[in-house]
Amino acid sequence: MLTLAQFGAGRIGQIHARNVAQNGRCRLKAIVDVNADAASALAGDTGAQVMTADQVFTDPEIGAVVIASATHTHAALIEQAAKAGKAIFCEKPIDLDSDRVAACLGVVAAAGVPLFVAFNRRFDPNFRVLHQRLCDGVIGDLEAVLITSVDPAPPPVDYIKTSGGLFRDMMIHDFDMVVWLLGERPVEVFAAGSCNVDPAIEAAGDIDTATVTLRTGSGRLAQIFNSRRSGYGYDQRIELHGSAGMLQASNWLEHSVTVATDQGVTGAKPMHFFLERYALAYKAELDTFIDAVADGAAPSPSGEDGRVALLLADAAAESLTANRPVNPGL
Amino acid sequence: MLTLAQFGAGRIGQIHARNVAQNGRCRLKAIVDVNADAASALAGDTGAQVMTADQVFTDPEIGAVVIASATHTHAALIEQAAKAGKAIFCEKPIDLDSDRVAACLGVVAAAGVPLFVAFNRRFDPNFRVLHQRLCDGVIGDLEAVLITSVDPAPPPVDYIKTSGGLFRDMMIHDFDMVVWLLGERPVEVFAAGSCNVDPAIEAAGDIDTATVTLRTGSGRLAQIFNSRRSGYGYDQRIELHGSAGMLQASNWLEHSVTVATDQGVTGAKPMHFFLERYALAYKAELDTFIDAVADGAAPSPSGEDGRVALLLADAAAESLTANRPVNPGL
Amino acid sequence: MLTLAQFGAGRIGQIHARNVAQNGRCRLKAIVDVNADAASALAGDTGAQVMTADQVFTDPEIGAVVIASATHTHAALIEQAAKAGKAIFCEKPIDLDSDRVAACLGVVAAAGVPLFVAFNRRFDPNFRVLHQRLCDGVIGDLEAVLITSVDPAPPPVDYIKTSGGLFRDMMIHDFDMVVWLLGERPVEVFAAGSCNVDPAIEAAGDIDTATVTLRTGSGRLAQIFNSRRSGYGYDQRIELHGSAGMLQASNWLEHSVTVATDQGVTGAKPMHFFLERYALAYKAELDTFIDAVADGAAPSPSGEDGRVALLLADAAAESLTANRPVNPGL
Amino acid sequence: MLTLAQFGAGRIGQIHARNVAQNGRCRLKAIVDVNADAASALAGDTGAQVMTADQVFTDPEIGAVVIASATHTHAALIEQAAKAGKAIFCEKPIDLDSDRVAACLGVVAAAGVPLFVAFNRRFDPNFRVLHQRLCDGVIGDLEAVLITSVDPAPPPVDYIKTSGGLFRDMMIHDFDMVVWLLGERPVEVFAAGSCNVDPAIEAAGDIDTATVTLRTGSGRLAQIFNSRRSGYGYDQRIELHGSAGMLQASNWLEHSVTVATDQGVTGAKPMHFFLERYALAYKAELDTFIDAVADGAAPSPSGEDGRVALLLADAAAESLTANRPVNPGL
Repeated sequence: MLTLAQFGAGRIGQIHARNVAQNGRCRLKAIVDVNADAASALAGDTGAQVMTADQVFTDPEIGAVVIASATHTHAALIEQAAKAGKAIFCEKPIDLDSDRVAACLGVVAAAGVPLFVAFNRRFDPNFRVLHQRLCDGVIGDLEAVLITSVDPAPPPVDYIKTSGGLFRDMMIHDFDMVVWLLGERPVEVFAAGSCNVDPAIEAAGDIDTATVTLRTGSGRLAQIFNSRRSGYGYDQRIELHGSAGMLQASNWLEHSVTVATDQGVTGAKPMHFFLERYALAYKAELDTFIDAVADGAAPSPSGEDGRVALLLADAAAESLTANRPVNPGL
Repeated sequence: MLTLAQFGAGRIGQIHARNVAQNGRCRLKAIVDVNADAASALAGDTGAQVMTADQVFTDPEIGAVVIASATHTHAALIEQAAKAGKAIFCEKPIDLDSDRVAACLGVVAAAGVPLFVAFNRRFDPNFRVLHQRLCDGVIGDLEAVLITSVDPAPPPVDYIKTSGGLFRDMMIHDFDMVVWLLGERPVEVFAAGSCNVDPAIEAAGDIDTATVTLRTGSGRLAQIFNSRRSGYGYDQRIELHGSAGMLQASNWLEHSVTVATDQGVTGAKPMHFFLERYALAYKAELDTFIDAVADGAAPSPSGEDGRVALLLADAAAESLTANRPVNPGL
Repeated sequence: MLTLAQFGAGRIGQIHARNVAQNGRCRLKAIVDVNADAASALAGDTGAQVMTADQVFTDPEIGAVVIASATHTHAALIEQAAKAGKAIFCEKPIDLDSDRVAACLGVVAAAGVPLFVAFNRRFDPNFRVLHQRLCDGVIGDLEAVLITSVDPAPPPVDYIKTSGGLFRDMMIHDFDMVVWLLGERPVEVFAAGSCNVDPAIEAAGDIDTATVTLRTGSGRLAQIFNSRRSGYGYDQRIELHGSAGMLQASNWLEHSVTVATDQGVTGAKPMHFFLERYALAYKAELDTFIDAVADGAAPSPSGEDGRVALLLADAAAESLTANRPVNPGL
Repeated sequence: MLTLAQFGAGRIGQIHARNVAQNGRCRLKAIVDVNADAASALAGDTGAQVMTADQVFTDPEIGAVVIASATHTHAALIEQAAKAGKAIFCEKPIDLDSDRVAACLGVVAAAGVPLFVAFNRRFDPNFRVLHQRLCDGVIGDLEAVLITSVDPAPPPVDYIKTSGGLFRDMMIHDFDMVVWLLGERPVEVFAAGSCNVDPAIEAAGDIDTATVTLRTGSGRLAQIFNSRRSGYGYDQRIELHGSAGMLQASNWLEHSVTVATDQGVTGAKPMHFFLERYALAYKAELDTFIDAVADGAAPSPSGEDGRVALLLADAAAESLTANRPVNPGL
């Protein structure tokens, strides 16, 4: 039974802590958060205790940490955890700066601890079926990946200001999916974007609508469409074109009821947002992490996967500014 | 915090016990089962203890019982629990004999305890949306209910022999849905049936394929189709025709992935069987029971709902034998 | 090149005449109708001439007749055409009286001319695929047929008064589909019905909502649901349950566009009514008739198919009145 | 009644000639083709006569011409027809060289005859509904257009060599749809492409798989995916993201039948190719042309629409070669 401590008691932290508490193969011992009230409330909910970071890193009973705190704290916590010999489950991203990421991964490698970067979408049951079918060869050789990924509504502008921007905060998930599905790293990234949803996002230096094209060395192509606002829920679709057919993962809907009237036939919207759509993915990624720790296997997605997705986001950002395709240097 | 004891550690018992154990508003204190190993294993899994029926009924800490034991034990356990003043959550059916059911409900009424008969389908999220839309009036006045309900594969013939037959064991769920959706009790039942799936079922005196027509006093109609074997998973669909349109609850699928090849476009099957399809319904019905106990409200579905569904099943069985429509006497 | 004359210049007559005029393998020479203006207008539209019945039956150039006049004229026209040696394409029904039908079929048999009864649904491209897949064995042995058939809105009550009632006018199509799909004649029919749509229909002695159950000697079952009013277009669906799976023919929609908003995801309605839904079926049935005449093959659907469907409708009507299952005597 | 002559008796010519012959508002007088056998056969099928170009241009009875001959003949025929005062219906493209197109349009303008460039997809019933819903404002302001357009299988390499390449031959349709839907001309085009389907296509200097991104001055975005080979029929989908929701036009399927077995639930493929999918569009575009000629209205799509689509294709080709975004100069 793996004993864990968790950093971060915010929205995503609450998801992870509850999943750890309910998972029969691990135990949540501690919650760490600078916000004492949040830490205390979440600890109460999950049967954990509030601890400090130092207490966690020096507690021999704690074998692993879940890092779900603010983004700017991730890299330092990873390094401390690595030096303390803890297995690490970290929310994306490791850091918004790729040099900082590389340095951090060096510390992890030196410590020899497992680092799991929690790209939750890889664990969505639908996308897992998609990936499995692809690996089974049902569409032959993969030639193109088309991703539509649209949030129901934009986050607060204050969040956007510290998020690293649309490419590093939102599309980073899609970059990871592209690499996971292609099994090949893109050599070229071209981004176009604009601000349609909210002028305040533009004032904050970001965009809210973007299309990105990626190309691999072998000539495979990917297209990603992102918008911060759908108006109809969380739109999360992937389409794979291969030499013998096409695979599609459609949205997962709120329910299966349709009503037919003289106005047409109306069915459910996609599940509202990530809390609903990826509820099972969050549970599954935790299980995968526990398996990897138990088996001594290399975690996947790895720290390197986190670095690759960040470099693709960086390349997209540079492409948008320079208005030309950019080699991400992978 | 409601403290419960559970009778029955079989397949459905395991579902309920785990849901009770995970529900934050109640506590599972005891498991009772004539099979000591099963009782012990489930108690171990859920943090409960093995107790005898007498211990349960005399334990003042236990406020409610979940009855998920073999069908022939239900009525007696309900009566004992009622006399002991426990709130009762009982798997369907109360009993296969309607006189026995009536007598049992008399004991419950005299004791004044709440009795909840767990017709799980009323709590399926899709059917709840269907019911809500109907109540919202989106299709005007309801005129007809069409239900398709097909199991993936038949149960063992030994089970069928003691099940009460297709109408009392399987279609009873559909009878309850018809009454719940119509809000009106049928006055006539006509059944046709045959044995297509397995001759052993016929040898056991039962059928495996059936169609039933129900009519209410106001002229509303219902059609139910049941088969013990689909070949493609658990087919659970309801269609409501009203004066202003139609509502449909389609199957809930295993995933959202389709593959397009020269063979056509292939998507997922319906979820395999009731454990998968109604996993959320089992959790929701427990919450509803806890609410009813907490609020002192009349449980719904009630013992009377259980009696009504059984009388409709009896009428169907009589109709099949007599080959004429039968008034269920409701 | 087959030369045809057509009786009837009403709604269905206009469909057939235009299909004959456009079909490259036949020629429309004459239109006959008691309404001279209607005959003249349709003749003008289709390049035909207005003729009398006598002229048609004595014209050696005319090899075949299309009978699309009022129902009560069908049987006499069939007999006259048969005696004149013309091949016959007749709209359903041959007559509303089964004895009259039998007598008429005797005349046709004596004359040795081909008689094609135009059950259009057998020629719908979707239902043809359904039938072909069934014959290909993709669902194994057929065990049950479920048909939903709902008109968008009821016809005028004056029409209903002379139509023979819901079973002989509307559900007769579904009876034919059941026999065509089962490949076996039912031995028992049970009908339930009511009047929900319009009290004037009840006053006219008819119903507007009905469910019928059919059973064959080998134990196969069929369920049909009919309503005179859907509120959302023409609902025409068939579902086949077999030993190895299920086949479904869904509605054919007005278009393929959906809109996703915060109100849900709304798609097209089914095509509005038979003119739209069965436009291709009307063309295909004409081709089949021309083929049969050219090849000297027995037409299908035949006069006997028309008689069988009528007897099933008669049995349903009797069942509704007597409130018991009825043997159609096939 | 408009009298037409048609140039070209090949595959697309046969579609147009038959539609002209069947359309009640026009008459097909002549077929012109360098292949005398093809001309003669098509004239025979459609009741037309074989004529020379000179005969057509000097025949005062002929009011309009349909140009469906080889691409390299279009511009000269348009100019001759314009000088002869004929209304012109021309298959895309006007020419593969944009300067030649501009010169040709100058001749047409000087002659004052109507020129209709037959971008058939604008007349697909599904895309018309899509466009209408967009104009009705159901998704608010349009922000992005996503098009997937995949052929079932590549054409012969000999065709590709003279086609102008994927962008000018195939994606030109999608460029026209983007402009039609956006109501705004793109200011930037970025293309990526590769050759996955057939090395012979690469040897011919073309690609078979491409993604193109377009951006307008107001910041709206479009993404197009093209492949010469789907493996599952003709994939023709459009998706519009707006400020209040999303509109999708899905594929139009071969039929509405699904089969559910233990292998999944399999439905129809998209209609196989343009002959099937756009059969109604070809009829509708002819009606639109006839209307425009009758009303003296400016035809739409116009010659200018043809020029715009070609310039977008040119920009895509240049972008692919130069590997940078290109301003199409519109």
